[in-house]
Amino acid sequence: MTLVRDVGEQGVLQKLKAFCPSDVIGDDGAILALKSSESLVVTTDVLVENIHFSDRTTAPEDIGWRAVAANLSDLAAMGATPVGLTVGLSLHGEVSLDWLDRLYQGLTACTSTYQTAIVGGDVCRSPVVSLAITAFGQVAPQRAIRRHTASPGNAIVVTGDHGSARAGLELLLQDEIPQDLTPEQRQTLIDAHQRPRPRLDVLAPLYALLGQQGCAGMDSSDGLADAVIQVCRESNVGASLKAEAIPIAPELRSWVGVERALDWALYGGEDFELLLCLPPDMAAELVQQIGGNAAIVGTIAGDRAVQLQTGDDWQTLSQQSGFQHF
Amino acid sequence: MTLVRDVGEQGVLQKLKAFCPSDVIGDDGAILALKSSESLVVTTDVLVENIHFSDRTTAPEDIGWRAVAANLSDLAAMGATPVGLTVGLSLHGEVSLDWLDRLYQGLTACTSTYQTAIVGGDVCRSPVVSLAITAFGQVAPQRAIRRHTASPGNAIVVTGDHGSARAGLELLLQDEIPQDLTPEQRQTLIDAHQRPRPRLDVLAPLYALLGQQGCAGMDSSDGLADAVIQVCRESNVGASLKAEAIPIAPELRSWVGVERALDWALYGGEDFELLLCLPPDMAAELVQQIGGNAAIVGTIAGDRAVQLQTGDDWQTLSQQSGFQHF
Repeated sequence: MTLVRDVGEQGVLQKLKAFCPSDVIGDDGAILALKSSESLVVTTDVLVENIHFSDRTTAPEDIGWRAVAANLSDLAAMGATPVGLTVGLSLHGEVSLDWLDRLYQGLTACTSTYQTAIVGGDVCRSPVVSLAITAFGQVAPQRAIRRHTASPGNAIVVTGDHGSARAGLELLLQDEIPQDLTPEQRQTLIDAHQRPRPRLDVLAPLYALLGQQGCAGMDSSDGLADAVIQVCRESNVGASLKAEAIPIAPELRSWVGVERALDWALYGGEDFELLLCLPPDMAAELVQQIGGNAAIVGTIAGDRAVQLQTGDDWQTLSQQSGFQHF
Repeated sequence: MTLVRDVGEQGVLQKLKAFCPSDVIGDDGAILALKSSESLVVTTDVLVENIHFSDRTTAPEDIGWRAVAANLSDLAAMGATPVGLTVGLSLHGEVSLDWLDRLYQGLTACTSTYQTAIVGGDVCRSPVVSLAITAFGQVAPQRAIRRHTASPGNAIVVTGDHGSARAGLELLLQDEIPQDLTPEQRQTLIDAHQRPRPRLDVLAPLYALLGQQGCAGMDSSDGLADAVIQVCRESNVGASLKAEAIPIAPELRSWVGVERALDWALYGGEDFELLLCLPPDMAAELVQQIGGNAAIVGTIAGDRAVQLQTGDDWQTLSQQSGFQHF
């Protein structure tokens, strides 16, 4: 097995160049043309070995796919079409070239699926492997999806199932294969975790409905509850959500029961769907056009509470203090 | 002393928000307007604790300044004006808030000096502190400075002194203070290392001379020899350089002698000046307009050899294999 230390920096760069378009390599930076009337959207993420990913649970191809998908989802969350991304890779000499190759296979499988590319990067030595990805996209400024523009009366749309990514992770962490899932159902949930799909496909039908105006929204990468709470906080509004309306994969519901499935949908995170706040008629039209399991899950309210209705029960959702990473 | 682990992620984010323009915070990404006729230029760098910087030799303010300066120099090297940059910060709980504050003081001292700003970022936990910076700029595409467009007959301009950054590092690493430098001279060399100045100021006079055309060039961050060799390789040309013409600070020459000073100028790196290849008359005019220690140091030649003339001696420069980081 060839290791990074066997080939040195030039060997690594040579390998990685194969994954970048040849016309953007060779200068101090990449030059990219943007549509003249559009603004630049920029988003960045750092992923660290054994904190955000681990070789023990995730194949390098999936680490790569997920890293790109998370950043493209942030672009979709702003209404932006991808233009390119840069990858800052930290690694040490004991990393194998095979691992590196598979990581970049995963990165580029996702970039090419979404018609974009790695257009620059940096490789440096570090005792800890990490990936710093910056993605940039373009959007007509008046159409940008922002968190602070939700209005009372807006319907809240989610573009697909929630909870499946968390369920897939659970399946990967369990040694036993649950008897109440078929192999296909199991794989569907695992795919939701390993190969999340940023909802860039939603932008075209959304813009066709919106015309030149924008709408409020974000992605649900930190869970559906977090997305609703963030949008409400930034917009100075509240929301009422209907638990029964939240799209959850039937196999998930039958596997872990309604209550846990709802908990994972609200707090599991990493489903990378979009949450959008739109006038009700437009919301209904969008849900129909997107198809799949897109749904209207609630309404934006004038007061500042975020409430969830389950049957006749109402509970107030609040931000979980779950992300104290240090 | 308050540590990162005492305040958690929210506490860190709260602190860092103060260093970003308030209108770009709160969404999944930042939205930036570009001039409509210009292309986007992107460059990225990762810096790792104890590899690219160390608290033992460098104050956090200087780590921050240098990190931004290196990226802005890459933009200048492409002829691009900065639009903004993102900072992906990896840190652990034992980092002090004071260190973090001083790091961001340094980052923003450099961004504000060059009329740009931190427009996005990510903070994550890692056992190793690192900084991943991606800088964005804009340039009219026909004006971009590229490495592959040097032509035989071009004069080779460097925008200022070389070797001083390497000398400053040497002074910081030495315990003894050399007797043959005044305190002011010593500080000048140390400043060259700690507070390098990306040569964005060169772009306006350069463009005034060039009109709508571009020119070949890059920055000298990996040493003057490397810059000449890279441009020649990408352009399929050679060069002849005159050692006596290379601008070297007089205090450096008198401190370490001509030979070592020249070695540091050619191979020391991190001077962050620009190397530009221009028609001779335009080169002379640019050198005069920039002033300082800008100089014409040689000529682009048709064959592929890169040669250095020292008195009557000629030597061929070749890429040192010095950057095998693993």
